[in-house]
Amino acid sequence: MIVEIYIALKKGVADPQGLTVKHALESLGYKDLADVRMGKLVVIKLNYKDKKRAEREVNEMCKKLLSNPIIEDYRFKLSGE
Amino acid sequence: MIVEIYIALKKGVADPQGLTVKHALESLGYKDLADVRMGKLVVIKLNYKDKKRAEREVNEMCKKLLSNPIIEDYRFKLSGE
Repeated sequence: MIVEIYIALKKGVADPQGLTVKHALESLGYKDLADVRMGKLVVIKLNYKDKKRAEREVNEMCKKLLSNPIIEDYRFKLSGE
Repeated sequence: MIVEIYIALKKGVADPQGLTVKHALESLGYKDLADVRMGKLVVIKLNYKDKKRAEREVNEMCKKLLSNPIIEDYRFKLSGE
């Protein structure tokens, strides 16, 4: 079972990296951008196929290690192997 | 129009960051992990709603700046505001 975890800064949290990328894209000629935000993608391949267990464990992993719940939100998508 | 871009290392490209995260998760007690790979998430808010134009420009942005086509793959998802 494969989990794709998407971690993004919460609304309102400053994102200097995203701003830098926005400026870089604008300097390449892409002027019609309202906003650019950078986040993380974590892809985990699990050795088991129990969906309930996967949801519980991935939630724990996100809260304990992968995301910073103070400034980041996460969501994830499970897909069968 | 909002674009979510997912950038991940190609298969076969070493991912030391992913390996470090895997070890950290294992040390927290999550032993049933086959693999962990780290990637990037870029969320761009566009000032226009032309889907064709968005697809063309986002492909260009990915190739020119956001991803490294030698070692990374990207895919993206458009969603109306």
